[in-house]
Amino acid sequence: MTRFAVLGAGRIGQVHARAIASVEGARLVAIADPLPGAAAAVSSKYGCEIREISAIEAAADVDAVVICTPTDTHADLIERFCRAGKAVFCEKPVDLDAARVRACLKVVQETQGRVMVGFNRRFDPDFAALKSAIDAGRIGKVEMVTITSRDPGAPPHDYITRSGGIFRDMTIHDFDMARWLLGEEVETVTAQASVLTDPKIGELGDYDSVNVILRTASGRQAIITNSRRAAYGYDQRIEVLGSTGMVSAKNQHEANIQIADAQGFHDAPLLNFFMSRYTAAYAAEIAAFVAALQSGGAMPTTTEDGLRALELADAALQSAQQGRVVRLAGPVGKAA
Amino acid sequence: MTRFAVLGAGRIGQVHARAIASVEGARLVAIADPLPGAAAAVSSKYGCEIREISAIEAAADVDAVVICTPTDTHADLIERFCRAGKAVFCEKPVDLDAARVRACLKVVQETQGRVMVGFNRRFDPDFAALKSAIDAGRIGKVEMVTITSRDPGAPPHDYITRSGGIFRDMTIHDFDMARWLLGEEVETVTAQASVLTDPKIGELGDYDSVNVILRTASGRQAIITNSRRAAYGYDQRIEVLGSTGMVSAKNQHEANIQIADAQGFHDAPLLNFFMSRYTAAYAAEIAAFVAALQSGGAMPTTTEDGLRALELADAALQSAQQGRVVRLAGPVGKAA
Amino acid sequence: MTRFAVLGAGRIGQVHARAIASVEGARLVAIADPLPGAAAAVSSKYGCEIREISAIEAAADVDAVVICTPTDTHADLIERFCRAGKAVFCEKPVDLDAARVRACLKVVQETQGRVMVGFNRRFDPDFAALKSAIDAGRIGKVEMVTITSRDPGAPPHDYITRSGGIFRDMTIHDFDMARWLLGEEVETVTAQASVLTDPKIGELGDYDSVNVILRTASGRQAIITNSRRAAYGYDQRIEVLGSTGMVSAKNQHEANIQIADAQGFHDAPLLNFFMSRYTAAYAAEIAAFVAALQSGGAMPTTTEDGLRALELADAALQSAQQGRVVRLAGPVGKAA
Amino acid sequence: MTRFAVLGAGRIGQVHARAIASVEGARLVAIADPLPGAAAAVSSKYGCEIREISAIEAAADVDAVVICTPTDTHADLIERFCRAGKAVFCEKPVDLDAARVRACLKVVQETQGRVMVGFNRRFDPDFAALKSAIDAGRIGKVEMVTITSRDPGAPPHDYITRSGGIFRDMTIHDFDMARWLLGEEVETVTAQASVLTDPKIGELGDYDSVNVILRTASGRQAIITNSRRAAYGYDQRIEVLGSTGMVSAKNQHEANIQIADAQGFHDAPLLNFFMSRYTAAYAAEIAAFVAALQSGGAMPTTTEDGLRALELADAALQSAQQGRVVRLAGPVGKAA
Repeated sequence: MTRFAVLGAGRIGQVHARAIASVEGARLVAIADPLPGAAAAVSSKYGCEIREISAIEAAADVDAVVICTPTDTHADLIERFCRAGKAVFCEKPVDLDAARVRACLKVVQETQGRVMVGFNRRFDPDFAALKSAIDAGRIGKVEMVTITSRDPGAPPHDYITRSGGIFRDMTIHDFDMARWLLGEEVETVTAQASVLTDPKIGELGDYDSVNVILRTASGRQAIITNSRRAAYGYDQRIEVLGSTGMVSAKNQHEANIQIADAQGFHDAPLLNFFMSRYTAAYAAEIAAFVAALQSGGAMPTTTEDGLRALELADAALQSAQQGRVVRLAGPVGKAA
Repeated sequence: MTRFAVLGAGRIGQVHARAIASVEGARLVAIADPLPGAAAAVSSKYGCEIREISAIEAAADVDAVVICTPTDTHADLIERFCRAGKAVFCEKPVDLDAARVRACLKVVQETQGRVMVGFNRRFDPDFAALKSAIDAGRIGKVEMVTITSRDPGAPPHDYITRSGGIFRDMTIHDFDMARWLLGEEVETVTAQASVLTDPKIGELGDYDSVNVILRTASGRQAIITNSRRAAYGYDQRIEVLGSTGMVSAKNQHEANIQIADAQGFHDAPLLNFFMSRYTAAYAAEIAAFVAALQSGGAMPTTTEDGLRALELADAALQSAQQGRVVRLAGPVGKAA
Repeated sequence: MTRFAVLGAGRIGQVHARAIASVEGARLVAIADPLPGAAAAVSSKYGCEIREISAIEAAADVDAVVICTPTDTHADLIERFCRAGKAVFCEKPVDLDAARVRACLKVVQETQGRVMVGFNRRFDPDFAALKSAIDAGRIGKVEMVTITSRDPGAPPHDYITRSGGIFRDMTIHDFDMARWLLGEEVETVTAQASVLTDPKIGELGDYDSVNVILRTASGRQAIITNSRRAAYGYDQRIEVLGSTGMVSAKNQHEANIQIADAQGFHDAPLLNFFMSRYTAAYAAEIAAFVAALQSGGAMPTTTEDGLRALELADAALQSAQQGRVVRLAGPVGKAA
Repeated sequence: MTRFAVLGAGRIGQVHARAIASVEGARLVAIADPLPGAAAAVSSKYGCEIREISAIEAAADVDAVVICTPTDTHADLIERFCRAGKAVFCEKPVDLDAARVRACLKVVQETQGRVMVGFNRRFDPDFAALKSAIDAGRIGKVEMVTITSRDPGAPPHDYITRSGGIFRDMTIHDFDMARWLLGEEVETVTAQASVLTDPKIGELGDYDSVNVILRTASGRQAIITNSRRAAYGYDQRIEVLGSTGMVSAKNQHEANIQIADAQGFHDAPLLNFFMSRYTAAYAAEIAAFVAALQSGGAMPTTTEDGLRALELADAALQSAQQGRVVRLAGPVGKAA
């Protein structure tokens, strides 16, 4: 049995508490949050204790923590709990600054920390099935990855200000997926970025509509297309072309019904919120974390994965701002 | 080269004239119609002569006729042109009265007439592909055939009066398809018929909503579901369950586009008129007729097929009216 | 908080234990099973007590029981727990004999028992969305209901022997759905039944392939098509035609991915087991039960619903065996 | 009646001859080809005369020519027939060299020639329906255009040598579609190009796998993704995101049937050859040409459209080779 503490009882903390409760071999032991009300709600629902972070750090009955606190605390907490000898599951991103992530990665390596960074999409059952089809050779050698990822609407302006920008906040998920699916590290990044949905986003120094082309050494390419607004909902599609075929994952709708009338045939809208769209993914990533802890196997998604995705985001921003192809420095993973 | 005359220059006559023009190895030589304007339009478009039916009967330069005249003239014209030694393509039905069809069939047999009865749906490319998949063993042994066939809206009341009723006018197409797909002759017919879309149809002694179960000696079954009204268009679907799989033919839409908006995902309406829905089928059935004539092979759909479908229609009407299962008399094809 | 005991720790009992654990406002207090091992597994997983049925009957800390014992104990247990003043959720069927169900219903009525009979399919999110679309007037007045329900494969022969036959065991779900969707009680039943997948099923006196037409007083019709074998998986579709449109619920696949290769485009197989196909439905029906108990509102599915579905099954069997239309006796619900 | 001559009786000449025969108000008068056999086949099938090009130039009974000769003759023939006062339909491209196209355009302008350049895809019924949906405001303001265009397999190596390269030969169709759908002229072109399917293509100095991002002054973007090989067939999809929705055009399959078996659900392969995929488009573009001639209205696709698409191809090649964003010179249409 892996005994968990969740740090942060906000929206995403609750998601992970529920995931822990649903996973075989996992038990939620403690919740920590500066707001007593938030912690109490989780405590009463799952029967776990409310504790200070420092108490959790020292607790003999906690094997692993799930870090769901604000982004700017992630790297510190990872380091702290690695030093305390706890396994760590941390919501992405580790930090918005690549140098800080590199420093954190160093601590993880020195402490031989067991750290998983939460790239939940890899654990979505459909995307996982797509990856399995590729690994099973169903499409031959991977050539082109196409990721369409559009939010139903932009976040509040004040969130945009502290988000690190669309590439570090939104595209970062797609960078991780692209790396995972390309099966080779990315060598060059080319991006175009526009402001089309809300001029205020431009005034804040960010973009809302971007296209990115990633390219590996062997010439494989990935296209990522993002928009902060899709009137028709949360659009999450992946398509991979290989030498002998193509595999694609479709969007998920609120219900699998169709209404036909004089105007045509109407399918239900998309699942429109990332928590309902990725409910199964959140449970599956905790299950994968528990499985890795219990088997002693490799972490499915690591701090290094988090760093690589962030480097791609930084490179994409550079490319979009400077109108040029940006080359990454290869295995060491530094933007040149 | 098979030289054709078309009898009747109305809507369906024009469809067949166009089909003849599009088919390799076929030429339209003559058109006949009591209305000079209708005949002239066809003549000028395809460069064929306007002739009397009697002249066509005697013409040395006509190999085959396509009968597109009113239903009550079909059987007479089939007999007349069989005796004149012309090949005959006749629009369904041969007649609304089974006894008259039997008499006509006798003449066809005596004269060794080359007669094809136009069950156009067998030649629809999708339904033909479905049949080919069955014949290729893709679903194993056929067990259940499901035919959904709904008109966009009921015909005018005066047409209903002289149509022979929904079973003989509309379901008859599905009876032919069911026989074709079941691969065995039907032994019993069970039907339920309602009036749901327009009470006037009931006052005229007809139904607008029917379900029929056909059953063969070995227990294979076909379900036919008909309605005179489908708000969403001309609904034409077939599904066949076999021992190792299922094959289905989907509806055809006006365009293969989809619009997504805040209300959901919207596909185009169906092709809504039998002539646009079955354009390819009309050309393919004439091509099949020409191929049979030129090869000397068997007619793809015969006067006997027409008789069998009509017998099923008569049996279904009996079943619906009397609330009982009606047994057909087997190979001789008479309702008991 | 509604405190539950589950009677029977077999496969379906475990499904309901999990459902209770996932539902807000519900707690699993006790499990009963003659096999100690089965009860112990549920007890350790959900932290509930193992008790005798008689102890549960008398327990002050149990508000509701979920009956997951063998079918032949259902009616007795319903009566017993109604008399004990507990709310009862009973897996369908109440009994395979309509007279026994009527007697049980009498006890339920006399004791003013709060009894829900588990017709899980009404709670499937897609079917519920389909019903909501109808209730919202999206297709106008209901005219035709088409239910396609096929099992991946037949149950073991010994199960067939004690199942009550295909109509009472399998079609009974569809009878309930048809009643729910037609919005009017059924007046006549017409059925055709064959043995096509396994001659042994016929030797056991049962059928494996059936089509049923239900008809209401106003002429609305439902078609149910069942097979004990569908090579392509667990086929569960519903389509409802109304005066202004049609609504349909599609099958659910193992994953929403598609592979394209030189042979065509390939979608994933269907969710192939009733427990994975209806996972969400099992949770939703317990949630609906809890909601009805806590609000004091009407039970969503009642003992009477169970009786009506069984009467339709009996009538269908009569119809199939005797080759005639069987008329039900109307509101009192007795087959004539 | 518009009287046509077709120049070139090869594969594409035959396509246009058939299109002319099917279009109301058009008649094929003459065919020209240096190979007597090719010309004779068209002549006997459509009953038109075989003539020299010079005779057609001088013919009083020819209103319009369709140029289906080798690419390197297009510009000369356009100029010649403009000077002869004939309307001209020319297969794309006008020339592989932009300077030559500009010179030709000058002659067209000086002679006030009626010239249509054959970008057949704009006339595909689905793509036309997609454009109509945009023009009808169904998706609001256009933001992102995504074009996926993949050939089933690469052309022969010797064709590649004289094709002008993938951007001028294959992507050029997509450049035209993107311009048409973006509704604004393109300002910058960013391309990445790889050799993934056949190293020989790289040895010939060409690419087989490319992604291009086009961007307009207002920030609208188009993504084009091309491959010379798609194992699953001729992949032709378009998707346009707008401010209030998205419209997409789906691929077309050989038949609209689906087979379900133990391995899953299988749709038919794609229409796999450009002539069968775009049959309707070829007829519709000739109909549009005839309509423009008879109404005196503007040509639907002009020599200038041909030039613009070629400039985008040239810019994409520059971008791919030099690893930079290439800016077009704006309304005058010269690559900077």
